[in-house]
Amino acid sequence: MSYTLVLLRHGESEWNAKNLFTGWVDVALTEKGRAEAVRGGELLKEADLLPDIVHTSLQRRAINTAAIALDACDRHWIPVKRSWRLNERHYGALQGKDKKQTLAEFGEEQFMTWRRSFDVPPPPLADDDEFSQVGDPRYADLGDELPRTECLKDVIARLLPYYDGEIVPDLKSGRTVLIAAHGNSLRAIVKHLDGISDDDIAGLNIPTGMPLVYRLDEDLKPLVRGGEYLDPEAAAAAAAAVANQGR
Amino acid sequence: MSYTLVLLRHGESEWNAKNLFTGWVDVALTEKGRAEAVRGGELLKEADLLPDIVHTSLQRRAINTAAIALDACDRHWIPVKRSWRLNERHYGALQGKDKKQTLAEFGEEQFMTWRRSFDVPPPPLADDDEFSQVGDPRYADLGDELPRTECLKDVIARLLPYYDGEIVPDLKSGRTVLIAAHGNSLRAIVKHLDGISDDDIAGLNIPTGMPLVYRLDEDLKPLVRGGEYLDPEAAAAAAAAVANQGR
Repeated sequence: MSYTLVLLRHGESEWNAKNLFTGWVDVALTEKGRAEAVRGGELLKEADLLPDIVHTSLQRRAINTAAIALDACDRHWIPVKRSWRLNERHYGALQGKDKKQTLAEFGEEQFMTWRRSFDVPPPPLADDDEFSQVGDPRYADLGDELPRTECLKDVIARLLPYYDGEIVPDLKSGRTVLIAAHGNSLRAIVKHLDGISDDDIAGLNIPTGMPLVYRLDEDLKPLVRGGEYLDPEAAAAAAAAVANQGR
Repeated sequence: MSYTLVLLRHGESEWNAKNLFTGWVDVALTEKGRAEAVRGGELLKEADLLPDIVHTSLQRRAINTAAIALDACDRHWIPVKRSWRLNERHYGALQGKDKKQTLAEFGEEQFMTWRRSFDVPPPPLADDDEFSQVGDPRYADLGDELPRTECLKDVIARLLPYYDGEIVPDLKSGRTVLIAAHGNSLRAIVKHLDGISDDDIAGLNIPTGMPLVYRLDEDLKPLVRGGEYLDPEAAAAAAAAVANQGR
């Protein structure tokens, strides 16, 4: 008996293409991003890895990636659950800033701390900033839980209750579960699954649009550490490109 | 206190464009159909009629219409529920047949009986027909309930339990409810809401891609019989065109 979890990072967004920090800003997919989502769905179909239920964040780029990929593998009709707990890391005051410019302005060390530190968040985003989520109706119920900035540790803290409470029961029911989410919310899940240390998670990059499949044992531990990409060569090349962002 | 229900018939599908009977065959939207869905979402946004929850059928053309329209009004993140009970009428042995050719072959009376009779279904679709839904995983749980043909009376019988059990509670919670569905499943709902007789429902046509808004009183009866289209002139012209299909 094993359980199947498929992770899918959204395809290229308009701000990925512009090399801006995005976080909770709700940008759309580019045409390339939509094509990546189609390809992700085709890979699922070719591998006969058909999701029975999908979980997404509340962000357009993950929601549309899920819809497009599921349409491509004829699973558009499966049940959908969404939660802010699967959102991308809130990038604080960096949201809307150019990555290359930020690197030049603050230097390599500060830049890499903000991007990859486990427990140091960027400065908080002001509530009156044009890229703030204060007042966004989709987060109205969060109250004081609405983040103004997050480090990866914060993402894990708000994500794991959803993983345990909503995703684990779906896995245990024997359903193939798809999570369509973001670079950092998926890193949080991978860290949890693979037992990666706080230091080592900094080096892990998840490429966009490539289904990452975890077969899990009865304790929901991976049968293969790190999971398996359906298109491993393309995934390795894409992960290397992600690691070089801002250069 | 009033409740708000918005009905949205999917935009043009590939088989609408080819003038074929579609029923439960899971065809895609055309580019025109996708544009209709965008326009539907824009109308919702302009009217500030923003859905809090969406119900769809299990069919691609309604699922994608909902996704596109909600994306266009920035409500892509709301909860989604899906049910086969919102599917289009099963068209039996007519599924896949050309409407004009069927009219020529069987004559006006038989054609109109199949299209508009309240309680006479077309002949059943054979289980080994290429357009049968037997074996489709999305309907695996239906067992003997899987239809092989339906008249509007049958649609009402399978739809109303879902309306009462799933949609009414959402309405009563005060949420603006969007139903993205099909010509005949929406006719079934309109018949129920407006108390239209079995004879008179034959004359009712719902245009594609145009939000139809019902404000309901505390007994969930319409404040305005027939509801209100957000773009009434375009809706009247489109309904006339639907009535002339097959001519």
